[in-house]
Amino acid sequence: MKAAIVMGSKSDYPVAERTERILKTFGVEYETRVISAHRTPRAAESFASGAEGNGIEVIIAAAGKAAHLGGVIAAYTPVPVIGLPVKSSTLDGLDSLLSMVQMPKGVPVATVAIDGAENAGLLAVQILSVKYGELRTRMKAYKEDMAKDVADADAAFSRGEH
Amino acid sequence: MKAAIVMGSKSDYPVAERTERILKTFGVEYETRVISAHRTPRAAESFASGAEGNGIEVIIAAAGKAAHLGGVIAAYTPVPVIGLPVKSSTLDGLDSLLSMVQMPKGVPVATVAIDGAENAGLLAVQILSVKYGELRTRMKAYKEDMAKDVADADAAFSRGEH
Amino acid sequence: MKAAIVMGSKSDYPVAERTERILKTFGVEYETRVISAHRTPRAAESFASGAEGNGIEVIIAAAGKAAHLGGVIAAYTPVPVIGLPVKSSTLDGLDSLLSMVQMPKGVPVATVAIDGAENAGLLAVQILSVKYGELRTRMKAYKEDMAKDVADADAAFSRGEH
Amino acid sequence: MKAAIVMGSKSDYPVAERTERILKTFGVEYETRVISAHRTPRAAESFASGAEGNGIEVIIAAAGKAAHLGGVIAAYTPVPVIGLPVKSSTLDGLDSLLSMVQMPKGVPVATVAIDGAENAGLLAVQILSVKYGELRTRMKAYKEDMAKDVADADAAFSRGEH
Amino acid sequence: MKAAIVMGSKSDYPVAERTERILKTFGVEYETRVISAHRTPRAAESFASGAEGNGIEVIIAAAGKAAHLGGVIAAYTPVPVIGLPVKSSTLDGLDSLLSMVQMPKGVPVATVAIDGAENAGLLAVQILSVKYGELRTRMKAYKEDMAKDVADADAAFSRGEH
Amino acid sequence: MKAAIVMGSKSDYPVAERTERILKTFGVEYETRVISAHRTPRAAESFASGAEGNGIEVIIAAAGKAAHLGGVIAAYTPVPVIGLPVKSSTLDGLDSLLSMVQMPKGVPVATVAIDGAENAGLLAVQILSVKYGELRTRMKAYKEDMAKDVADADAAFSRGEH
Amino acid sequence: MKAAIVMGSKSDYPVAERTERILKTFGVEYETRVISAHRTPRAAESFASGAEGNGIEVIIAAAGKAAHLGGVIAAYTPVPVIGLPVKSSTLDGLDSLLSMVQMPKGVPVATVAIDGAENAGLLAVQILSVKYGELRTRMKAYKEDMAKDVADADAAFSRGEH
Amino acid sequence: MKAAIVMGSKSDYPVAERTERILKTFGVEYETRVISAHRTPRAAESFASGAEGNGIEVIIAAAGKAAHLGGVIAAYTPVPVIGLPVKSSTLDGLDSLLSMVQMPKGVPVATVAIDGAENAGLLAVQILSVKYGELRTRMKAYKEDMAKDVADADAAFSRGEH
Repeated sequence: MKAAIVMGSKSDYPVAERTERILKTFGVEYETRVISAHRTPRAAESFASGAEGNGIEVIIAAAGKAAHLGGVIAAYTPVPVIGLPVKSSTLDGLDSLLSMVQMPKGVPVATVAIDGAENAGLLAVQILSVKYGELRTRMKAYKEDMAKDVADADAAFSRGEH
Repeated sequence: MKAAIVMGSKSDYPVAERTERILKTFGVEYETRVISAHRTPRAAESFASGAEGNGIEVIIAAAGKAAHLGGVIAAYTPVPVIGLPVKSSTLDGLDSLLSMVQMPKGVPVATVAIDGAENAGLLAVQILSVKYGELRTRMKAYKEDMAKDVADADAAFSRGEH
Repeated sequence: MKAAIVMGSKSDYPVAERTERILKTFGVEYETRVISAHRTPRAAESFASGAEGNGIEVIIAAAGKAAHLGGVIAAYTPVPVIGLPVKSSTLDGLDSLLSMVQMPKGVPVATVAIDGAENAGLLAVQILSVKYGELRTRMKAYKEDMAKDVADADAAFSRGEH
Repeated sequence: MKAAIVMGSKSDYPVAERTERILKTFGVEYETRVISAHRTPRAAESFASGAEGNGIEVIIAAAGKAAHLGGVIAAYTPVPVIGLPVKSSTLDGLDSLLSMVQMPKGVPVATVAIDGAENAGLLAVQILSVKYGELRTRMKAYKEDMAKDVADADAAFSRGEH
Repeated sequence: MKAAIVMGSKSDYPVAERTERILKTFGVEYETRVISAHRTPRAAESFASGAEGNGIEVIIAAAGKAAHLGGVIAAYTPVPVIGLPVKSSTLDGLDSLLSMVQMPKGVPVATVAIDGAENAGLLAVQILSVKYGELRTRMKAYKEDMAKDVADADAAFSRGEH
Repeated sequence: MKAAIVMGSKSDYPVAERTERILKTFGVEYETRVISAHRTPRAAESFASGAEGNGIEVIIAAAGKAAHLGGVIAAYTPVPVIGLPVKSSTLDGLDSLLSMVQMPKGVPVATVAIDGAENAGLLAVQILSVKYGELRTRMKAYKEDMAKDVADADAAFSRGEH
Repeated sequence: MKAAIVMGSKSDYPVAERTERILKTFGVEYETRVISAHRTPRAAESFASGAEGNGIEVIIAAAGKAAHLGGVIAAYTPVPVIGLPVKSSTLDGLDSLLSMVQMPKGVPVATVAIDGAENAGLLAVQILSVKYGELRTRMKAYKEDMAKDVADADAAFSRGEH
Repeated sequence: MKAAIVMGSKSDYPVAERTERILKTFGVEYETRVISAHRTPRAAESFASGAEGNGIEVIIAAAGKAAHLGGVIAAYTPVPVIGLPVKSSTLDGLDSLLSMVQMPKGVPVATVAIDGAENAGLLAVQILSVKYGELRTRMKAYKEDMAKDVADADAAFSRGEH
C-alpha cells in the first residue's frame, strides 16, 4: 500500500510534515513531492497520470491560496485525492478551502479542515483500510488511544489535576 | 461492495437522490437511511457502530445547517465517511460546509462541495475502487464519457451550433 | 443546584476556566469534564444521558472548529445546553459559531459569543435563577456591580483621570 | 409559568408565530409583544424592567438586521433572554446573527439559529423545565415523538416508500 | 458647538483617543463618556435623552462585538449619531460593523470604517460645519494639508527618496 | 436647505426613490442626479467641487458593487456625504457595503445599511437639523409617529388582532 | 488580433455570450471554446500550450465554483489570461472569485467581477489596445458613449423624466 | 515600454516594492507614484488623463481598505489598469479585494490576489508582451526558472534533503 503527499510549494512542508507523521505511525509507505499546479503543470500531469501505474492508491494534495492542486491532480487520475487546504497570509484559509472543496460535478476532492494535516493522513489510512485489513485494525487502536487520552484528561480534571 | 447514504432529514432526499443515481450507475450496492444526529442519536450510534460489521465500506452523510451527522458517524466507525453539506434556507450552505469540513484532529470527514451530491457518489466509488478493480475500470470510462461530453460541446461551439 | 462544564479538549481550558470563575462567584456547584463528541462519543452519550439523573440542571459545552459537542449533548438530554464556541487557529471562530448556533429544528443549543466564557457562565446562572431565587438576587447585585464599574470609569473620564 | 415573545416589528410575526406554536404545544402561557429597541426604546425598557415583576420567566426576542432587541432587553432584566435572529433582505441573516450572539461580557443573549423559531420555543421550554417538572416530562415526550418521526421516515426508505 | 464621544467600555479608549485628537485639532468642544448599552442602559438613555438639551450637536459612539451603543443612543435622540465599530478579538471587526451599520428603517447610525477613529471625528466636523462656517474653512485647510502630505510623499518618490 | 441624491446608475432609482420620499416628507429641497464615478468621473468631480457653492449641504450617494461613488464625491467636497450601498446580483450587498464604509483615514463616508434608503434620507435630515431647527422639530414628530405605529401594532397583538 | 473565450462548461454560455458581444462590438476576432480544467485537462493543456502559436493574444476563462480554469490555462501559456468568475447555485460566487483571484505567486490571472462578462471583454480590448491603436481609439469612443448614456439619464432626471 | 505603479499611500510601499522588483527583473521602465483617490483626487485625474500621452502602457494601482484607486484611475484612461489589493489592519484584505474586483459594467480593473505584488508585476509584463516580443521571451524564461525551482525542491525532497 502506498500513498503520495504532494505540496504546491516547499513552504507547505511544516503542515505536510504532520501528515507524514500519521502515515509513518500507521506504517503506510509514502512519497512526498513538491509539484505546483501552476509553476510545474506538466509535472502535475505526469505525476497524476502515472500515479495509478506507480502503485499509488491515495493522494494527499496540500496547497494554499487559490489551491488548484487537488483538482488538477484529480483531473488526471481515478485514484482518490484528499485536499488539504493550507492557510496563507490573507483570508485565514477561506480561499484555500473554497478552492479545494467546491469542485464542480464530476471530479471530487475529499477535503479536510484548513491546516488539518493529521486528518488528511487519517483519511488516507481510512481509505486504504477499505482494502488493507491491518490498517483497519490499527485505526481502531488509534481511535482507542485517542479516546484514552481524552478520558485521562477527563479523569485528571475530576481529580483536580490540570 | 456496499455503501450507505445517510440523510439527516428526509427533506435532504432531493439532493441525496442524485448520489443514489451515481452509485446505481457504477453498480455499487447501497442502502439509504434517514438518521438524525440530533433527533435519533442512538440510531446514529447504532448504525455507525454496526456499519463495518454489516459490510458497509464507505458512508455518505448528507445534512444541512449545523451538519453534525458526518462527524457523529465518523466518531463511531473506522469506515471512511464522506460529508455532503446541504444548502439550507439561510447562509447559502456556508454553515453546513464549515460544520462538516472543519473537523478537529483525529476524526476526519471527507467533505465535498455544498449540494455536491454527484461528487459524493463519485468519491465513494473512487474509495471503493482502491479495493475493487472493476470500479476503477468503470471510473476511467466515466471520466472518458465526461471528457467526451465536454469535447462534443466544444465541437458544437466550433461549428457555431449551440 | 448544579451545572456541568464540558470541554471538547483540555486545550479549551483557558477559555472554560473563565466560565468556572463565574460559577464560583455565584456559588453554583459545577463539575468540569473533558469529553469529545468525536474521540469519546460514548462518554458524551453516557454523560448526557445521565446528566438529569445526576442532578445536573444546565450544561455548558465549550468546543472549537466543527464544534459538535453542544449538539451531541443536547441530543441525549432534555437539560438546557449552552454552547460556547471557541476560536481556533483558522477562520477566527466563525466555524465554531456556525457549528453551534445553526442547530436544526428540534434540538436547540443556547449559543453565546465566540470565546464568550463569562457570558456562558452568566447565562447558566440566569437559567438556574428561574428556579433558585438566591441566584436571581445575586445576578441583580452582579448587574449593579457591573454598572458601577462602568459608572466609575465614566466618572474617571469626566475628571480627566484615565 | 409564563414566557414572553417580543418582536422588533410586526413583520417578524411569520417567524415568531412558529415559536408561539411550540409554546402552545407545551402548555406554556405566553404574551406576544411588538416592541422596537430603536423606535420604542422606552417600551423596551418598561417591558424589560417589569418582566420579572410581571411573572415572566423567560423572554424570546425576535429581530432582524442590526438586531439589538435581545441585548437591549437583557440589559434591563435578570430574566434569561433568548435571541432569535430573523433573516432580512440582505446578507442572509448574518447581520442579525452576529448582532445577537456576539454580546459583550456581562450580558448574555442565548442565541438560536437564524429563523430558528421552533428552537427558540423549545429552548424556552427547556429553561422553564429546570423549575417545572411537567415541562421536562413533556420535553422528553416531544423528543421521543421527533425520534419516532425520523425512525418512521427511515423505515419508509427501507421499504422503498418515499 | 459641542460633540460627545461615548465608548462602550474604557478599553475602547485607545481607539476613541484618536477621535479626540481630531476634535481638538478642529477646535470642537467635546466630552468623553464611558456608557454601556448593556451594563448601564439607564445611563445611555439618560445621556441620549438629555443630549440635545445639553447642547450636544453630534454624538460619536465607539463599541465592539455586538455593538448596540450607536443604535441605542440614536433611539433616544434626534441628534445625528456616528457609529465607530471597534475591532475585538474575534471576527476581525465584522460583528461590530454589521451591528452598527445594518440599522433597521427609521433610526440611522452614520457608520465609518472599523477602527476608523479619525474618520469618525472628521465626519463629526463635517456635520457641524453645515452650521458652523469656521469648521468648513478648517476642513478645507485640513483637506489641503492631507493633499500636501500625499503630494510630498509623491515628490519624494520621484526624487528616489523614501 | 438643500440636499442632493446621486445615483451611480439609473437602475439604482427604485432604491433612491425611497430616499426622495423621506426628503419630501420633511420638506427638504433636493436634486436627484445620475453620476457614475467610473463612467462620468468628470461629472462627479464637477458636481462635487461645485456642491458647496451650489448650496448643497448634504449629499447622499447610492451605488452598488465596488461602490466608489461616495468616496469619489467626498474627495472633492467638504460637505458631508452619506453612503447608501445598493445590493446587486452577487454577494448580497457585502461588496457595496465594504466599498463604502471602509474609507481610508481622512475622507469619511457616513454609511447606512445595504438598501437602507429611508435611513439615508433620515440621516440627511438629522444632519441638516443641526442647523435648521424646524427639521429637528419634524424629526421628533417623525420619531413619535414611528413609536405610535409600533405601539399600535403592539396593542393590536394584545387584543389578538393581527 | 485574436482573443479566445474558454468556458468550463457550456452552462456558462449565458454569461460568456455577453463577453462575445463586447468583442464583436470592438471588431476583435475570437474563438469560443468549452474546455474543462477537470473533465478535459488535456484539452486545456493543449489549448493553452498552443495558444500563442495559434495567434491568440489574450484569453478569457469563465468558470464557476472552484474555478481553476484560469489558473490551469495560465500555467501553460505566457499569454495574459483574464478570469471571469461565474456565480453558481451556492455561496453567491464567492468561491469562484477566490479560486480565480487568489493565484499564488508566479502565475497571475487578471480577475474581473463575479459575472462581470462585459468587463472581461473590455479588459481584453484594453490589453490588445496596448498593441493595436485602432482598439484604443474605439475604446475611447466606447467610454464616451457610456458617459453620454449616463449624462442622458442624468439630464432626464433633471427634467423629471424617468 | 513603460509602466506606472501608483500607491494610495506611502505605507503601501513594502508591498509595491515587490512589484518594482519584478518590473526591474524584466527590464520594464516604470515610475512609482503616491496618489490618493481620496486625498489627492485631482492628482489622480491628472495622472490618469495624461498617462497615455506620457507613454504609460499599463498601470498598477495598489491600495487598501475601500480601495478605489484602481477604479478612479481606470475611469480616466483607456490604458489597462491592474488592481493590487493591499491587506490592512481589519477584515484581512476582503474589503480591498471586493472594492477593486467588483467594478461595475464598463470600467474593468484587472485584479490580482490580496498582497499579490509579484503577480501584479508579472501581469503587467504579460500585458506588455502582447506588443513587445522580448518581454514574451523573458516571461517564458521566467516561467522556466520558476519550474526549475519547484523541480529542484521536488528533487531535494526525493533525496530526503529539506
